Amino acid sequence: MFLERIDSPADLKQLSIHECEQLAAEIRTALLTKASAAGGHLASNLGMVEASIALHYVFDSPKDKIVFDVSHQCYTHKILTGRRDAFLCPEKYGTANGYTNPDESEHDLFRVGHTATSISLACGLAKARDINGGKENVIAVIGDGSMSGGEAFEGLDYGGSDINSNLIVLFNDNQMSIAEDHGGIYQNLAKLRETEGAAEENFFRAFGFDYLFVKNGNSVADVVAALRQVKDIDHPVVVHICTTKGKGYAYAESHKESTHYVRPFDLATGREKNAFTGERYDRLIRDHLLEKMKQDPKIVTMIAAVPDSLNFTQEYRLAGGKQFVDVGIAEEHAIAMAAGLAKNGCKPVFATLATFYQRTYDQISQELCINNAPATLIVANASVYAVNDMTHIGIFDIPMMSNIPNLVYLAPTNRQEYFAMLDWSIDQTEHPVALRAPRNGIFEAKGSVDTDYSRLNVYKTVTRGEKVAILALGDFFQMGEELAQAVKDAYGFIPTLINPRYITGLDETLLQELKKDHTLVITLEDGVLDGGWGQKIASFYGPSDVKVLNYGLKKEFLDRYDINKVLERNHLRVDLIMQDIRGLV
Amino acid sequence: MFLERIDSPADLKQLSIHECEQLAAEIRTALLTKASAAGGHLASNLGMVEASIALHYVFDSPKDKIVFDVSHQCYTHKILTGRRDAFLCPEKYGTANGYTNPDESEHDLFRVGHTATSISLACGLAKARDINGGKENVIAVIGDGSMSGGEAFEGLDYGGSDINSNLIVLFNDNQMSIAEDHGGIYQNLAKLRETEGAAEENFFRAFGFDYLFVKNGNSVADVVAALRQVKDIDHPVVVHICTTKGKGYAYAESHKESTHYVRPFDLATGREKNAFTGERYDRLIRDHLLEKMKQDPKIVTMIAAVPDSLNFTQEYRLAGGKQFVDVGIAEEHAIAMAAGLAKNGCKPVFATLATFYQRTYDQISQELCINNAPATLIVANASVYAVNDMTHIGIFDIPMMSNIPNLVYLAPTNRQEYFAMLDWSIDQTEHPVALRAPRNGIFEAKGSVDTDYSRLNVYKTVTRGEKVAILALGDFFQMGEELAQAVKDAYGFIPTLINPRYITGLDETLLQELKKDHTLVITLEDGVLDGGWGQKIASFYGPSDVKVLNYGLKKEFLDRYDINKVLERNHLRVDLIMQDIRGLV
Repeated sequence: MFLERIDSPADLKQLSIHECEQLAAEIRTALLTKASAAGGHLASNLGMVEASIALHYVFDSPKDKIVFDVSHQCYTHKILTGRRDAFLCPEKYGTANGYTNPDESEHDLFRVGHTATSISLACGLAKARDINGGKENVIAVIGDGSMSGGEAFEGLDYGGSDINSNLIVLFNDNQMSIAEDHGGIYQNLAKLRETEGAAEENFFRAFGFDYLFVKNGNSVADVVAALRQVKDIDHPVVVHICTTKGKGYAYAESHKESTHYVRPFDLATGREKNAFTGERYDRLIRDHLLEKMKQDPKIVTMIAAVPDSLNFTQEYRLAGGKQFVDVGIAEEHAIAMAAGLAKNGCKPVFATLATFYQRTYDQISQELCINNAPATLIVANASVYAVNDMTHIGIFDIPMMSNIPNLVYLAPTNRQEYFAMLDWSIDQTEHPVALRAPRNGIFEAKGSVDTDYSRLNVYKTVTRGEKVAILALGDFFQMGEELAQAVKDAYGFIPTLINPRYITGLDETLLQELKKDHTLVITLEDGVLDGGWGQKIASFYGPSDVKVLNYGLKKEFLDRYDINKVLERNHLRVDLIMQDIRGLV
Repeated sequence: MFLERIDSPADLKQLSIHECEQLAAEIRTALLTKASAAGGHLASNLGMVEASIALHYVFDSPKDKIVFDVSHQCYTHKILTGRRDAFLCPEKYGTANGYTNPDESEHDLFRVGHTATSISLACGLAKARDINGGKENVIAVIGDGSMSGGEAFEGLDYGGSDINSNLIVLFNDNQMSIAEDHGGIYQNLAKLRETEGAAEENFFRAFGFDYLFVKNGNSVADVVAALRQVKDIDHPVVVHICTTKGKGYAYAESHKESTHYVRPFDLATGREKNAFTGERYDRLIRDHLLEKMKQDPKIVTMIAAVPDSLNFTQEYRLAGGKQFVDVGIAEEHAIAMAAGLAKNGCKPVFATLATFYQRTYDQISQELCINNAPATLIVANASVYAVNDMTHIGIFDIPMMSNIPNLVYLAPTNRQEYFAMLDWSIDQTEHPVALRAPRNGIFEAKGSVDTDYSRLNVYKTVTRGEKVAILALGDFFQMGEELAQAVKDAYGFIPTLINPRYITGLDETLLQELKKDHTLVITLEDGVLDGGWGQKIASFYGPSDVKVLNYGLKKEFLDRYDINKVLERNHLRVDLIMQDIRGLV
């Protein structure tokens, strides 16, 4: 086994090209074994095995600087740079995360998890090298959909003219985003593949880059030959390699989308182990939307290459027909396009993950909110209960979005409320509306829910009690219910319990009225406290005698955290809150 | 005079092409007269006169839908669509603002002020038209630098493949951004101009668009002929017109950058009337930076096509040499590139306006803050005292930026402090740092200022008094000083006055200590209150007996406001605050 001998790229360089091809097979086996047991990004990593070997065979990392876009395709790179055991030894699977991570290795330059940034990062590295008088190669590794993000185009545009020195973009063209590729450039890429790089129109040359085509990006020999040609080159060049997503695993080659990211699965059948078969909001909302789309041809459901924000897998995308739009990884475009759709009488519903809305702050502010465009935004994975990779955590959306004027940001607390809010939002024509998709399980409404949310910032009093008011937003409403019960049990009076529903404003009438017979207000929110919703309540009561305790998360970049520890650290547990309020009740 | 007869595009259509050319001359005179008296965007509007006439001559607005990118080039469009008097009658100059505005006219579809959005907006309009079964033309008018923003590329990419119907992009190629054009595509555009559109490499075709070249975009006849060719076309097409920025006014043609946006000036000489000759922070910082760059070759000063954020006009850009970078209108790229520069040992300093930082939320969070890249961001025009166009107001940066973990956001209160903070930021290697450039005038420090800001979140107690503590952030520090004096005068005791300096965190030790002998804490900040800094103070004191009053701006999109009225409405005046605290002291 060659793999056991590779402790660093230096060891790799001792192998012959032929031995490298064997090494590729060993790595592929390791990737498959780990993914089937522990999950992760699979298909694109299978496609990038040979190219990653070639990169380290030709270049001298960390002197030469390799930046992985999104960095979900970096597994082979990790294996070759001293982190083999994290892929070979089940007990060490947890020692490497799924993205490049400077804390793990000097070969990882940046923590990266969002798309389309690698060329710009590489431009910075290259510019600094030129200022430093260095000679190292700078390589951006991009592809698997991420070439459609605006930042990548900006990077190409800058690099193609203003970096007059070594800058190598290795473009992995596997003809896929997470779902199918989208965008005009993919037609150009198809022509380049057909003509083996000779087509007249060349997307990369149009940006000022030199260009090299590699037909078989799954051949170590071919990629090595190409990279040797561009090593130490004195100008920007794109090396366009064609790879097969899922390469070497038949199931993945024929199920590219579902094997993009996998949970533990059976290698023989490709079938997910312990697949979740219960109800999930993404699927429920998808079915609900599809039904509504049939009834109302003006509804246009939009995603930006992340089908799982709404679980719009291929069959459902087809069912959506012309009322379904996947813009590819281009969130800024998506929001502006939604504003255009709304202006011309359609009812756009866009969904993506909270972390990816970060790309659209300006578009939400300018195109949607300044223009009061009645678009609906579904914000998925906005919760401490959601994805816990540092680059993908979804606890910052409330400060980011809720302080933009004109936006109505709603936090449903149960199934019926979520659907009612969505229905209202789609049909109203006054406001841009965002919905914070619940992530703490599916709860049923205990009574009736409102169908009209057009009277903004009217909170719902679930129980009108006394002394203590618990304002429990969205996902933490159920914690609020438990807290109310605990207060009653401990102190013998019934506290007030409120479902605020509106993240973007205060119900000042209600808050004022509470002053009469309440001395303590407790707020709960599933996101960072700083800049969030509870602090507005604290500010409201600032000049009064009412005491306020805000509960939520500390402002920090968490990473692969234990949810219970995080909740405990932030006192987000009924027993801990009960301790805090002693002396205040 | 033809202009007097044009109340709507229908009147325009009655003219012959020859008469349209005369009309163009009349409009040009009106544009010059108004700009010289009242200021505004001048040079690009002079270049767009004929093309705007041609648009309304060929198409039927508002049925046909015209979207102006940035919309700073829309003046002729406004003149032709019923708003002539706003350009001809001095007493009505204020009746039309400088951007498209649906409140003014049904011919203006969106309020727009940021770049690169028009193609995406048009894609939405076109998609909705197709769903509606409409037949109207949809036209995006873009250019004058805005083609280099990532969102424009995303729009081209989507439109070029997924809009299989009418979509017309009128690209005004005047070879300029605000400063010179930047980016590889501009090399391609140069080739297209040289070959009159016949070059093999074609940026627009690479994105899947059809393409038409118009050599003389300042000829009504030529542009009309081209637009007639594409009217009712059944697929996406780019009409590339070449115009002269500043056309028809010799001074503007030879001073394209300084006449991009003008203040009142003398028509004969081009010279600004009442030009400001005093000290301004943009110029002071520019000179300071240039001096530092000479001493330290690792410093790289970066802008994104907005020279006036640092007043880096051409001579200064040249003086900066390879240590000065203008990335063009590509803010996302700029931030990621800064992270790359920092990673490779350089000291990047990026400056743009607060409103344009909105494009970079995700890059600040991911590339800079997750990676703790030691870059310096200068945030200009972040103040209620700055630009007051709705699309450019700078009062949202504190909620947007200060709630991102790891960022150190500083608010200097005087000249010496600003420079000291900048010097510290450039040389430290631990944190991404943003500086909120003051906008309320240049004040001198009354005592010594710290040179080291590495002990984060240590507020500066200027006066240790009693009972009332005034925490006055950045631009509002001077108001805090006046308030302290007023409190002393009215109540006979000396209140505590604090310069917080750090927007991104609380000095909990100090805040705790204040509890001893203070019953009221007043916070002042020059930005929206919601999600801002003062609300964190309110949250800190929420469970205590200390009362808190937060002063700042209401969350709303202000537009062309009277600063004094806005300050009054928000009680941001010493006498009004004094009224508020009666009964609390």
